Amino acid sequence: MEYSSMNKAQLQAEYDAVAKDFEALKAKGLKLDMSRGKPSKAQLDLVSGVLTALTTPEECAVEGTDARNYGELAGLPCARRYFAEILGCKPEECFMGGNASLTLMYDTISKAYTHGLLHSEKPWAKLDKVKFLCPAPGYDRHFKISQSFGMEMITIEMTENGPDMDAVEEAVKDPAVKGMWCVPKYSNPEGVIYSDETIRRIAALKPAAPDFLLMWDNAYCIHEFDGDFVPFPDIISLCREAGNPDMVFEYASTSKVTFPGAGISVMASSVDNIKYMLGLLGIQTISYDKVNQLRHVRFLKDKATTLELMKKHAAIMKPKFDAVVSALDKEIAPLGIAQWKRPKGGYFVSVDTMDGLAKRTLALCKEVGVVMTGAGATFPYGVDPRDRNIRIAPSLPPVEELEQAIAVFCTCLKLAALEKLLAA
Amino acid sequence: MEYSSMNKAQLQAEYDAVAKDFEALKAKGLKLDMSRGKPSKAQLDLVSGVLTALTTPEECAVEGTDARNYGELAGLPCARRYFAEILGCKPEECFMGGNASLTLMYDTISKAYTHGLLHSEKPWAKLDKVKFLCPAPGYDRHFKISQSFGMEMITIEMTENGPDMDAVEEAVKDPAVKGMWCVPKYSNPEGVIYSDETIRRIAALKPAAPDFLLMWDNAYCIHEFDGDFVPFPDIISLCREAGNPDMVFEYASTSKVTFPGAGISVMASSVDNIKYMLGLLGIQTISYDKVNQLRHVRFLKDKATTLELMKKHAAIMKPKFDAVVSALDKEIAPLGIAQWKRPKGGYFVSVDTMDGLAKRTLALCKEVGVVMTGAGATFPYGVDPRDRNIRIAPSLPPVEELEQAIAVFCTCLKLAALEKLLAA
Repeated sequence: MEYSSMNKAQLQAEYDAVAKDFEALKAKGLKLDMSRGKPSKAQLDLVSGVLTALTTPEECAVEGTDARNYGELAGLPCARRYFAEILGCKPEECFMGGNASLTLMYDTISKAYTHGLLHSEKPWAKLDKVKFLCPAPGYDRHFKISQSFGMEMITIEMTENGPDMDAVEEAVKDPAVKGMWCVPKYSNPEGVIYSDETIRRIAALKPAAPDFLLMWDNAYCIHEFDGDFVPFPDIISLCREAGNPDMVFEYASTSKVTFPGAGISVMASSVDNIKYMLGLLGIQTISYDKVNQLRHVRFLKDKATTLELMKKHAAIMKPKFDAVVSALDKEIAPLGIAQWKRPKGGYFVSVDTMDGLAKRTLALCKEVGVVMTGAGATFPYGVDPRDRNIRIAPSLPPVEELEQAIAVFCTCLKLAALEKLLAA
Repeated sequence: MEYSSMNKAQLQAEYDAVAKDFEALKAKGLKLDMSRGKPSKAQLDLVSGVLTALTTPEECAVEGTDARNYGELAGLPCARRYFAEILGCKPEECFMGGNASLTLMYDTISKAYTHGLLHSEKPWAKLDKVKFLCPAPGYDRHFKISQSFGMEMITIEMTENGPDMDAVEEAVKDPAVKGMWCVPKYSNPEGVIYSDETIRRIAALKPAAPDFLLMWDNAYCIHEFDGDFVPFPDIISLCREAGNPDMVFEYASTSKVTFPGAGISVMASSVDNIKYMLGLLGIQTISYDKVNQLRHVRFLKDKATTLELMKKHAAIMKPKFDAVVSALDKEIAPLGIAQWKRPKGGYFVSVDTMDGLAKRTLALCKEVGVVMTGAGATFPYGVDPRDRNIRIAPSLPPVEELEQAIAVFCTCLKLAALEKLLAA
């Protein structure tokens, strides 16, 4: 029976029962973590071959380059070819970074501020106001970069097909709007795949700002956990074809393919953009870690081999997502107090509660010893205007712990809803 | 006989002979590189143990952390302890970077511009003028960072004991002077070790700028190639004791200990500075590559083990420096056309020619197929006011190639001198 159909007495009876469950869970002294999209130990153990991919000096030589020594600012050619195949772009459009694509993203924004982008009239630090479009719910670390640089973040509503493009097309008429964050495949946290129509409209934007920066974080480009690999279009080609050749910077990494703490990353953009950025990047490094690039190329080989590996990750991930969704289906769906997405890839399950329950639910979870991403984190400035979005990250705990954690979550969500309905 | 004592006929005869040598060398079609401080293959082959230091999941676990996964923004505690021992500072003063300390240096400057430092009144991007002290001859990549950010670089003369401290103390009275580049041990390119007195005066500076940034690039802190390890003082303690606790950021790396393209780096500063920077760095990364940190700690172990390794590097490096200096002693010293330092560590030999010969000498070298660091590179804006400083980097070529290369250099230097003297 839906809570909204219950009368006061029924709600009170349900509250008493759920409160009892809550106290019982609390007494267990749990310590569980569903806060971040961290791969599990079992996943990391799949890729130990990275550790032994290079063991001798001879193996460190590749195409006339000694990966151990200085040089090759843009990265090893074989690494650029590897990521070009994954992303469907050209090797010369790829710049190889270190273990964090986040650092490459930050660096792009930072250079926009200190030096300006290829088509900037001046560095953004010299502007009175920089606005950035933030489809939300979205990735908290994107929003924190924007916030750190003092940008004015404009929330764009997410739909089932990606950002609300009517709103985006309207917003970019403002020359102070300098860019947009996007996670086009298995968006963080909702797991939405931008539709072809959405992507086409994004590539064809006509922003007033000549240096509009489309931040295309393709973090989950090959990260299906349910079903076969879903092809995605090359945003760099699409932007070029739409007359915006230098509008997009795309990012990806092996953080959730090999090791989160020791993978490799890529920044892909037009040849002109890469050339411009190399001029600036050459001041700050002689190259990112090429030995690790070569380890990865030797181990991951190519797209086909990598997709095989992703199937093994999927086999570990799927039961966890199933556990979360089936608990929600069983425990919460009948009560009508929340809705959730059923992603087929990525790292998160996004739950929208009745308005005003997210903070309270997570506070209750914390009381019981279950840590989750903070309420509001998926919105600009950490403020969810309806206080309803909760990001569940099921990847790290083993299934048995996860089942406990999601049971706690369901109990806390019910309790929060009952508190609210009883107070109404 | 010194060239300056020769009469016109003698000079012409010498010119004819040297020009003949030059043509003969040119005919050889050489292709030799003394341009950058790159370790040689023999040195890289010394440290293959890094490649096999971690081969299993179990080995990636350390002090409760899985080095493969996300986390530990400041770096693995064992890596921070390792570098604290090398630098003589505290582990909590160390932040672990990726394979390039240059990137950490750039990032510090960049953050000064975008966010300001701990004691900045405002981000440097908001200032009309930022001046930086550049002891010269110095490291070209330092000067390029300053130039990239549009700083006004103020040249400070280098003495045998480090920067001319009278000039430095005078210069820092200007509040627009925001910092200084230093390579305190085996300075690039001269191989000068700053004297205790110089270091004491630096630590005790009273800059007008509250956020004066002492960039202490300790790149060659353990890089003796001739003789035993030379202890150096902990600049962080010295600054603290002198009442400047947050003035200095120190940098070091394993680029010339293990692999230039795949080492680890450190930024060390006061606990308050590190705390402040972690607040900013946490926006751009979740940590630098911890697996590589752990590989290095397992392989290098501690200072004593590392110093043993540096002895092996020295055994490869010393014959190369000897070849350079003995060729100069034999071929150039009697002619009185140049002077040079005799470093006991670091990666360079610095030659000062008669005024006005550096560019021409290097152009001649290039004609013969010997690439060297561009003339002027060791000065701000790439302009050597006396056109005389030449940086020789003997580390990369094998000794037999190096002997050829330095012979070319001597011939070209003679030819340049003779051209000039004959034209006078």
